[in-house]
Amino acid sequence: MEKKAAIIGGGVIGGGWLARFLLNGWDVNLYDPDPESERKIKAVLENARHALPMLYDVNLPTEGSLKFCENIKDAVDGATWIQESVPERLALKHKVFNEIINYASSDAVIGSSTSGFKPSELQEESIRPDSIIVTHPFNPVYLLPLIELVPSPANSEAIINKAKEILTSLGMFPLHVRKEIDAHIADRFLEAVWREGLWLIKDGIATTQEIDDAIRYGFGLRWAQMGLFETYRIAGGEEGMAHFISQFGPCLQWPWTKLMDVPELTDELIEQIANQSDMQSGHKSIRELERLRDNNLIAILRSLKNENTAAGALINKHEQIIKPELPSEYNGPITTINRVIPNDWTDYNGHMNESRYGQIFSDAADIIMKTVGANEAYIASGLSYFTVDISIKFLAETHAGSNIHVKSFILQGEGKKMRLFHQMFGDDGNLMATGEQMLIHVSLKTRRACEPRKDVLTNLERIAAAHSKIEDPRGEK
Amino acid sequence: MEKKAAIIGGGVIGGGWLARFLLNGWDVNLYDPDPESERKIKAVLENARHALPMLYDVNLPTEGSLKFCENIKDAVDGATWIQESVPERLALKHKVFNEIINYASSDAVIGSSTSGFKPSELQEESIRPDSIIVTHPFNPVYLLPLIELVPSPANSEAIINKAKEILTSLGMFPLHVRKEIDAHIADRFLEAVWREGLWLIKDGIATTQEIDDAIRYGFGLRWAQMGLFETYRIAGGEEGMAHFISQFGPCLQWPWTKLMDVPELTDELIEQIANQSDMQSGHKSIRELERLRDNNLIAILRSLKNENTAAGALINKHEQIIKPELPSEYNGPITTINRVIPNDWTDYNGHMNESRYGQIFSDAADIIMKTVGANEAYIASGLSYFTVDISIKFLAETHAGSNIHVKSFILQGEGKKMRLFHQMFGDDGNLMATGEQMLIHVSLKTRRACEPRKDVLTNLERIAAAHSKIEDPRGEK
Repeated sequence: MEKKAAIIGGGVIGGGWLARFLLNGWDVNLYDPDPESERKIKAVLENARHALPMLYDVNLPTEGSLKFCENIKDAVDGATWIQESVPERLALKHKVFNEIINYASSDAVIGSSTSGFKPSELQEESIRPDSIIVTHPFNPVYLLPLIELVPSPANSEAIINKAKEILTSLGMFPLHVRKEIDAHIADRFLEAVWREGLWLIKDGIATTQEIDDAIRYGFGLRWAQMGLFETYRIAGGEEGMAHFISQFGPCLQWPWTKLMDVPELTDELIEQIANQSDMQSGHKSIRELERLRDNNLIAILRSLKNENTAAGALINKHEQIIKPELPSEYNGPITTINRVIPNDWTDYNGHMNESRYGQIFSDAADIIMKTVGANEAYIASGLSYFTVDISIKFLAETHAGSNIHVKSFILQGEGKKMRLFHQMFGDDGNLMATGEQMLIHVSLKTRRACEPRKDVLTNLERIAAAHSKIEDPRGEK
Repeated sequence: MEKKAAIIGGGVIGGGWLARFLLNGWDVNLYDPDPESERKIKAVLENARHALPMLYDVNLPTEGSLKFCENIKDAVDGATWIQESVPERLALKHKVFNEIINYASSDAVIGSSTSGFKPSELQEESIRPDSIIVTHPFNPVYLLPLIELVPSPANSEAIINKAKEILTSLGMFPLHVRKEIDAHIADRFLEAVWREGLWLIKDGIATTQEIDDAIRYGFGLRWAQMGLFETYRIAGGEEGMAHFISQFGPCLQWPWTKLMDVPELTDELIEQIANQSDMQSGHKSIRELERLRDNNLIAILRSLKNENTAAGALINKHEQIIKPELPSEYNGPITTINRVIPNDWTDYNGHMNESRYGQIFSDAADIIMKTVGANEAYIASGLSYFTVDISIKFLAETHAGSNIHVKSFILQGEGKKMRLFHQMFGDDGNLMATGEQMLIHVSLKTRRACEPRKDVLTNLERIAAAHSKIEDPRGEK
């Protein structure tokens, strides 16, 4: 199969498709009559080149070649996949499909990005309706995996399977929508939420900001990892999905939304939902689902914490309130770290990744820096310490949930040099790892070594002198 | 302020509240007439003790003490915060509030977890209506930050502010709902989505699994970090929010949902939304919002990738398809790693965290292990290599988006020992770091050192012999 795609219509959606194909090693032809299209495509592509390769821990295939074409004929010539993303006007789409089919290979897949039309509507005036299928993506197309793959009865098994195979090879998830319907599946939800949002604003209940906060600090986090029904299955507890529905059911009669056309909750419908939910999640106990949900939420929240954004920014603020004071006793080793190992630091077996020992020691060095006065303000003034080398000895494994602590020693603190030694201990007080670390004081402007500020050097020397009286901790091993 | 809370009603929601308070250092009294409540609370608490401490990079305060009480009087005695989470029956809630107020301190906050009732309804039969306020949480309460804080006109500024302050100190986000309304804000959306979901199942369009996939592989990921309106602001592009609404507006007239009661999109409403959106996000350009969204999505997707779940499992599957073959040329140094630095590996300044150098070298060692035949199947058979120590020299900084590669040398490969040396190079071919690593072959059953399987040892020795003819790479620095 030749990896050659044609993109017809190069807005944000067409551009996203183009980037998906190109960065997965496909050659891509673009046709868009907009004279601005080259500029627009390059903007999307720049975002995609920044983003998509970061998702993976291996390199993507070598990027394909991109050609801007003058007409549909040149664009679709020899293409295995043709993606239509022109404006949502049915007559326009019919015209574009007819032109595509005049010049396309007879076995090319012609996918439509339509968010509203049914495939049978798109196929209406075509001499080759079986080639046209809905493949509805979500913005940003280069990052989000979902594609709603909606065939009509005119599409053969063969073309449906070919489309699934190609989409999967691009890292996407083709959701086979078995019955065609206006707006498919996802946009029906988005539309319902949008309408509800308009009412809340119109009625002066909430602003756009308040609505967004209600989503991203609450159910949005749940929906990034489980959907609606698996989440509610957990809420139903051991009594199950039917119990949840019969509990939550009465709300349907209440004026909780402006959108009041509600299906009757017959026993048959309840049983249908409960059975589908059993098929979906019945192989896991509620307890297992709770743990899965919680571990996913921790991982997501910690990823946002690292970006210091959305719900992660809230955690960082809270951490500023609960974080311990800096150490004030220097005559013995300094307790620099006291924390729990989070599940995003572990591998599939639940053991902490090797590199996180390094992270813990680097965090310990941060605390020592702050303790001698090389804090945020000091760094903002253009001075800091850089780690030159570190040697880590691994003595025992640890796992998520363990509470570890670190004792740190200043082995050497003079001039530009700060040599540290860290001991990491587990729940049970066992020594789990040691790290010896050399840091050099630098100017952040010149990126070169320089002397610390006087007060920092004085603090450093004072603690180093106290620690020189302790037995060398490296003798312990 | 005394950190003492009373939890009235100990189901999943009450239990979640209890855990939030307890793990933030508050003493908690519980009252629940259910004879099973102690067992249920302990299950929630076990989940919370597993989950909440992992969110933070510092330890939580020392856990408070928990007391199971025989009646409301004992439970609320001296409590600063009293949280009601009894079943959603108004008469029952009135009865419980009246009893609480008989025994509570006059300045205690009485929060209700109701998802449907308005605060003025809750306050109706109370002699102290000003003490009662809606504080509606989201499951799991110990992890999700959102609390809908809904006062009625009977509540004073003082109690609203006190409630906000306490909730914030627990790491929660009090969303002040300014106008009371049935089901507040978030549940109106959940209700709309739930109704739409019931229709899709009833009409045979989608199963619970398909609906959940449509959410968690698509818009659910967007909503974990931005909400509805900021996401759509980006979709509107440089032309702005009003443009987006006028484009998307016509769909409201289409039969995209069963829920058809729609507010009229007057110019006034469009302007109101556009202005609110400017207030919310106008300080960032569309380009900046796109980058923020993409970086957040990468971070979330990579966190799910590490858990090998939801959309992250799709990325892992795709990675298996695109990953390069194992190295087959051994006479020179082996190129073990070739990848892009993702943004979740960097600090706020965009520089790669120190510990990730260690991760790259540990990943390089993995490739060497696979190359000599110590692959997944070998590990599943109960044999592996463990890293005993690593020494890393840091020579240059690197940042997100950089494409780095690693050349690895087998310095020693005999018996149980494998000593590796890695060189990491940046985009421009500059040496950025080196790592020297000692690994020992172990039995995963006995956790003790042992000889490798014969074929693995033979492969190791062969490459080590070839590498012994290259100049010692440690001489380079």
